[in-house]
Amino acid sequence: MELWGFWRSLASFRVRIALNLKGISYEEIPIDLMAGLQKGEAYRAVNPQMVLPALRDGDGPVLFQSVAILEYLDETHPEPPLLPRDPRGRARVRGLAAIVAADSHPLIVPRIREYLEHELGVPEEARAAWCRHWIQAGLKAVESHLANEAETGRFCHGDQVTIADICLVSLMAGAKLFGADTDGLDGANRIAAACMELPAFADAHPLRQPGAPGRG
Amino acid sequence: MELWGFWRSLASFRVRIALNLKGISYEEIPIDLMAGLQKGEAYRAVNPQMVLPALRDGDGPVLFQSVAILEYLDETHPEPPLLPRDPRGRARVRGLAAIVAADSHPLIVPRIREYLEHELGVPEEARAAWCRHWIQAGLKAVESHLANEAETGRFCHGDQVTIADICLVSLMAGAKLFGADTDGLDGANRIAAACMELPAFADAHPLRQPGAPGRG
Repeated sequence: MELWGFWRSLASFRVRIALNLKGISYEEIPIDLMAGLQKGEAYRAVNPQMVLPALRDGDGPVLFQSVAILEYLDETHPEPPLLPRDPRGRARVRGLAAIVAADSHPLIVPRIREYLEHELGVPEEARAAWCRHWIQAGLKAVESHLANEAETGRFCHGDQVTIADICLVSLMAGAKLFGADTDGLDGANRIAAACMELPAFADAHPLRQPGAPGRG
Repeated sequence: MELWGFWRSLASFRVRIALNLKGISYEEIPIDLMAGLQKGEAYRAVNPQMVLPALRDGDGPVLFQSVAILEYLDETHPEPPLLPRDPRGRARVRGLAAIVAADSHPLIVPRIREYLEHELGVPEEARAAWCRHWIQAGLKAVESHLANEAETGRFCHGDQVTIADICLVSLMAGAKLFGADTDGLDGANRIAAACMELPAFADAHPLRQPGAPGRG
């Protein structure tokens, strides 16, 4: 498969984890978000929304939106499963994933930070505080489920990795990148650490990708 | 089933549409977003993220996050299906839904508008422009798929209603509420109009709910 991604893109990180968990070989085509290349003509022809990631499986068409891609990979490569089997469990996992992928991460992506800067004149420190605020709000919401629900296990939902863990880990990596405090989020910290012990997660980490600081 | 929602909540609108399409009877418990009641102790015990909607099916637990709820309803009440059967089609539908439910709508909800106002001091007209901007960006991204892909039919994906249509219609209703221009979005306008001819959509519309302007 071909993945259009970028080392720093947290949504690309999610797709890399799933590809690794499923044992799918892929080539990553880097699109430099810091240089704005996701808005260039070449990538626009791949994904008209001009956001990362995108994935091509065989002769296409191109798949877009990270969580839709995770569901596709789970449907086409069922082992190991990334969702539980019961509908209530699946709903909980998808709900936790959406707290991250819908209600948190989209608030801190480049296009939002650029609008805050250029359209609203928000200074750098206040933009950084915005990012930290929404990362922490998302993590706290996930934690409120993890801490109080019997379904929580070694991972977000029992003892198998699911889409919820993939999303949680991506936001925890965002917390690190943006300097957001995660003290007191005991469940989130414990589960993220358990995930990062798995090579599928560790190998997919932003700071392990070509182009990341210190990786050349 | 019991739905915690609000007339103006676009995510609650999505769940009402799905409940209607599936022929599921439900009671809606209104949580007044304009009065901030989603942050009150009573609702916090229902959904610790303090956002709408939430749904209880029988003896629970409470389901949260609108798209996770749509998937749950589709799994537990398969007719009529809200996703196509082939994985690529499902990925396209989920991707279109995510452009709305992840990358657009979360940018304009009350907690964001409040942060812009109170933390960043963004004046009212600029906050309204922010909402219009992100609604239009999402609709344009959806339109770029609808206009150029062979899978587009009477609805977003062929001639059956899917989760993509439910999400699209919710954002089109948001465009109306926030005064965002939708001229030129021919596919989105045509499909939203086709959806609104269906009673399941029309009956779920924000302005048809108790508490909406003119509805008492």
